[in-house]
Amino acid sequence: MNKKYIPPIYIQIKDILIEKINSGELESGSQLPSERDLSETYSISRMTARNALTQLVDSGYAYRVKGKGTFVSIPNYERDFVKLTGFSHMLKSKGIKPRSKVITLGIIEANKKIASLLDTTIGTKVYEIVRVRYGDNIPLALEYSYLPINLFENLLQYDFENTSLYEVIENVYNYKFKYSKQWIKITTLYKNEAKILDVDEHTPAFLLESISYDTNDKIVEVTRSLNIGDRTTFYTELWPNA
Amino acid sequence: MNKKYIPPIYIQIKDILIEKINSGELESGSQLPSERDLSETYSISRMTARNALTQLVDSGYAYRVKGKGTFVSIPNYERDFVKLTGFSHMLKSKGIKPRSKVITLGIIEANKKIASLLDTTIGTKVYEIVRVRYGDNIPLALEYSYLPINLFENLLQYDFENTSLYEVIENVYNYKFKYSKQWIKITTLYKNEAKILDVDEHTPAFLLESISYDTNDKIVEVTRSLNIGDRTTFYTELWPNA
Repeated sequence: MNKKYIPPIYIQIKDILIEKINSGELESGSQLPSERDLSETYSISRMTARNALTQLVDSGYAYRVKGKGTFVSIPNYERDFVKLTGFSHMLKSKGIKPRSKVITLGIIEANKKIASLLDTTIGTKVYEIVRVRYGDNIPLALEYSYLPINLFENLLQYDFENTSLYEVIENVYNYKFKYSKQWIKITTLYKNEAKILDVDEHTPAFLLESISYDTNDKIVEVTRSLNIGDRTTFYTELWPNA
Repeated sequence: MNKKYIPPIYIQIKDILIEKINSGELESGSQLPSERDLSETYSISRMTARNALTQLVDSGYAYRVKGKGTFVSIPNYERDFVKLTGFSHMLKSKGIKPRSKVITLGIIEANKKIASLLDTTIGTKVYEIVRVRYGDNIPLALEYSYLPINLFENLLQYDFENTSLYEVIENVYNYKFKYSKQWIKITTLYKNEAKILDVDEHTPAFLLESISYDTNDKIVEVTRSLNIGDRTTFYTELWPNA
């Protein structure tokens, strides 16, 4: 006789759902079938459906939102903070698919904060590029980049949804990055920022500010980026005599 | 005739208060005199007192708490994340006075998280040192340190309020730090953590986790530290070919 172990129904359903999550059929952040859906689809009791969903939540594959249902977990992306590199390149090196959406692109007058970061005077005209950064199609950050106009003729002709700004700076304009100063603060998202990132208002976020210098110690780029708190971990390595 | 400029009363009062803040007579986080107090002390109108306090708030020296009053601003400390060093040493190098308060000190059985960081098995006995870290007497972080028992005989005899754990590890036990892996996440404080740090429950905080290795690549210390969000900025420098 075949004594092969057959797991209980709720485990079988859980495994089916995990397979759909791993294959991408059920995407991160998307809603899982309800207890009712599951019980109808698989002809199982509501209790069995509930147990399957609870198993998914307990094993970290899903999370519940009160009054809304059960959703596929959104991963927390470990961001290397070890060496200077472009956002896209860094995600790719971790096996995560980068994507950018340009929100606005233009020339603005530097406010106090931007002027201070760019080491220029308030009102100076500078490029502003605002992008949403995605990893595996999940919004991770809203990034504001500022660049001095005089160093980058016709910068706005490039397609920054499909071209890395970092690479354009290095390969088109030939400014080689020497180093970058970086500050990490905590903030919470305003309504309009939260809306763009498709998360709740007041969501905690890392505010990452940077000033990047080229090999002649000229400031070539300044960024302010809002990184959704529970989707980002910054990783670095410290040495005593760096 | 003497044409020396005399500023308006509210500016004079503001300047008196700033002097008291700078001299330390009014400490960071402490409550400022109310409008009523000021108007009585200096024989000025409530309106003048209010203007003086508003000036203080607008210039960043103070902040208001609804229904409570006006308080001396708490500075945001820039924490170097450039090279590995002890907390006390790092604060001192910035001209900030470090202080530690030991909350608990003992031997515990590693839970899943601690065991994973220390690369040991759940239930293994390890040292646990829990300290509140202060800068200029302001609570900055609640820090949990874990160390393997077998590497540090009689570790608990030291006075970690007045002795740097980092220095004890290096100078008493002769383990030289090679490097440290560090992860920065966002969290919010639980009730008991918030109480220890004297801030509100759910205050956003950096969760800083670290694993430190000695020159033989042995794990000598693991920490989990909760850093009050609006009192801490992490600063680092990134280079393309680190």
